[in-house]
Amino acid sequence: MKNETVITARYAETDQMGIIHHSVYPVWFEVGRTNFIKMLGVTYSQLEKDGVMLPLCELGCKYINPVHYEDEVIIETSVKKVSFAKIEFSYRVIMKDSGKLMAEGFTVHGFVNSETFRPVNIKKLNPEMYQKLLNAQND
Amino acid sequence: MKNETVITARYAETDQMGIIHHSVYPVWFEVGRTNFIKMLGVTYSQLEKDGVMLPLCELGCKYINPVHYEDEVIIETSVKKVSFAKIEFSYRVIMKDSGKLMAEGFTVHGFVNSETFRPVNIKKLNPEMYQKLLNAQND
Amino acid sequence: MKNETVITARYAETDQMGIIHHSVYPVWFEVGRTNFIKMLGVTYSQLEKDGVMLPLCELGCKYINPVHYEDEVIIETSVKKVSFAKIEFSYRVIMKDSGKLMAEGFTVHGFVNSETFRPVNIKKLNPEMYQKLLNAQND
Amino acid sequence: MKNETVITARYAETDQMGIIHHSVYPVWFEVGRTNFIKMLGVTYSQLEKDGVMLPLCELGCKYINPVHYEDEVIIETSVKKVSFAKIEFSYRVIMKDSGKLMAEGFTVHGFVNSETFRPVNIKKLNPEMYQKLLNAQND
Repeated sequence: MKNETVITARYAETDQMGIIHHSVYPVWFEVGRTNFIKMLGVTYSQLEKDGVMLPLCELGCKYINPVHYEDEVIIETSVKKVSFAKIEFSYRVIMKDSGKLMAEGFTVHGFVNSETFRPVNIKKLNPEMYQKLLNAQND
Repeated sequence: MKNETVITARYAETDQMGIIHHSVYPVWFEVGRTNFIKMLGVTYSQLEKDGVMLPLCELGCKYINPVHYEDEVIIETSVKKVSFAKIEFSYRVIMKDSGKLMAEGFTVHGFVNSETFRPVNIKKLNPEMYQKLLNAQND
Repeated sequence: MKNETVITARYAETDQMGIIHHSVYPVWFEVGRTNFIKMLGVTYSQLEKDGVMLPLCELGCKYINPVHYEDEVIIETSVKKVSFAKIEFSYRVIMKDSGKLMAEGFTVHGFVNSETFRPVNIKKLNPEMYQKLLNAQND
Repeated sequence: MKNETVITARYAETDQMGIIHHSVYPVWFEVGRTNFIKMLGVTYSQLEKDGVMLPLCELGCKYINPVHYEDEVIIETSVKKVSFAKIEFSYRVIMKDSGKLMAEGFTVHGFVNSETFRPVNIKKLNPEMYQKLLNAQND
C-alpha cells in the first residue's frame, strides 16, 4: 500500500544552483504523508484535533538526481514500520514522465500528546488508527 | 525610534535567478519586527502567551536592487502608525557595507485574541504595551 | 482571461498561530503565475532559457481570512497591465468549497535580460510573447 | 576545528505544533556550513564563482528536543571526512543558554563543476582548498 502524489516544483523552491533546494524534499515528503494518511480515511488535521501529533524524531534523504523548476515528480509514500510509540514512513521521488528516481528518504515520528508533547501509546489512544496504520505497513 | 537588525542572506533564500527570492523579504521584515518589539522591553513570544497575536492584514514591498547570497543587509524597522485596533510597521533593507537601499516595505497587523482570533482593543487589554508602541511611533 | 490553480495548504506552510504564514502567499501567487504563463502556450522555464527573466519590482497582499492546513484554495491569476517594460499580475485566493475570499494581491515585474539583469523591451525581444500577454490583459 | 554560529529561531520557521519545523534544520546546517567555509579564509560564493559547487548527496538529522520561536541556538559545524570527490559535514544544534542538545545531523556533498554538474577532483582543481578542508577534518 502506497500513496502517489504528483507535485510540480515551484520557482521559490529553486536555489542559485538552478535546482530544487535540498530542504524542500522534507516538505514534499510531508505532502505525501498528509495524502497517505488521508487515504486511510482520516485527515492529519483531525488527528491533531483528537490530541495526537507526530513530530519528527529522525529524517534521512539521499539526493540522486537534481529536480528542476516546473518538473513534475511523483512522491511515493509508504509505511515502513509502525509500533505503539513510533511510525516510520519511506518516500521515493520519481520523475513523472520518465520514471527516473530522483531521491529517496525516510522519516521517523513519535506519537505525542498535543498538549503536553509527551509520548502516547497510539494503540490505546486510537486503536482504530493504529490498526489502519498496521494494515498499511509494507512487508 | 527604529531597530536595526543585521541579516546575512542564506543560500536557501536564493532562487535560480541567483538572487534572494522575493518571498524572503516578509520573513526578514518579521525578524526586524521581533527585534523592534524586544527593544521595547517585551518579547513577541510573551505577547502571544498573554493572549494577543498580531496577524497580518496587509503587506507591501518594493524591490529596488537584488540581494545576493552572503550579502549582509540591515533591516530598519519602525512603527509608522498605531491605533487601538491596528499597527503599521515600515521597513527598509539596506546593504551594510554601502548603505545602498535594496527594498522597502510595510506591514499592517490587527491586534487579536489568540484563542478566538477576534479583534481586541490593545489599549484596554495591555495599556502599558499600547503606550510603548505609541511612544515608538515615528512622527 | 484568468488561470485558476488549486493548491492544498501544506503543513510546513503553517506557523504557530495555526494559520498559513503570510510569506507563503507570494509563493502561491508565483504558482498561479507559472500556470497562467503556461496557459499562454509557453513555459516560464523556456522564457528564462530564451534570455528573459521577470524579477519582482513590487508586491502587495491583503489578508482577509486566515487559511489553514489542508484547506484547498483556488489561486485566480490574471494580467492587470502589460507594457514594453513591465507587467502587473493580480491574484485572488478563494476557498475552493465555499468561494470565500481569503486574500488578494498583485505583483509587478520588469522584463530583464537574464545575463545582465538590465531592462529589455519585451515587444522587440519577443513580439509573440508580448502580443499573447497583451491579449490576456483584463479590461 | 569547528564553527559555532548563533541563530535565533524565526517566527516563519515555526509550524502549527508551535515548534520549529523540521525542514528548517537543513537550512540552519547550511548557515553553519557557510560560516565554516568562511572561517577557512574563502567564501562559498567565491567557490561557486571559481566553478565548483557542492550539491547534497545525502542528509540526515535526529531531532532530540523541539526548538521554539526566539530560542537562541548554536549550530556547531565540523568536517567529518573529506576525499577528492566528496565531503561530509556534521552538525549539532545546542541551546545557547543551557547547552542542551536539540538536534544533530550530517550532510554529504559531491564536488561538481558548476557548468556541467559533473563530478570534479577537488584536489586537482583547487589543491589549496582541498588542503584546508583536509586540515579542518576532525579526527
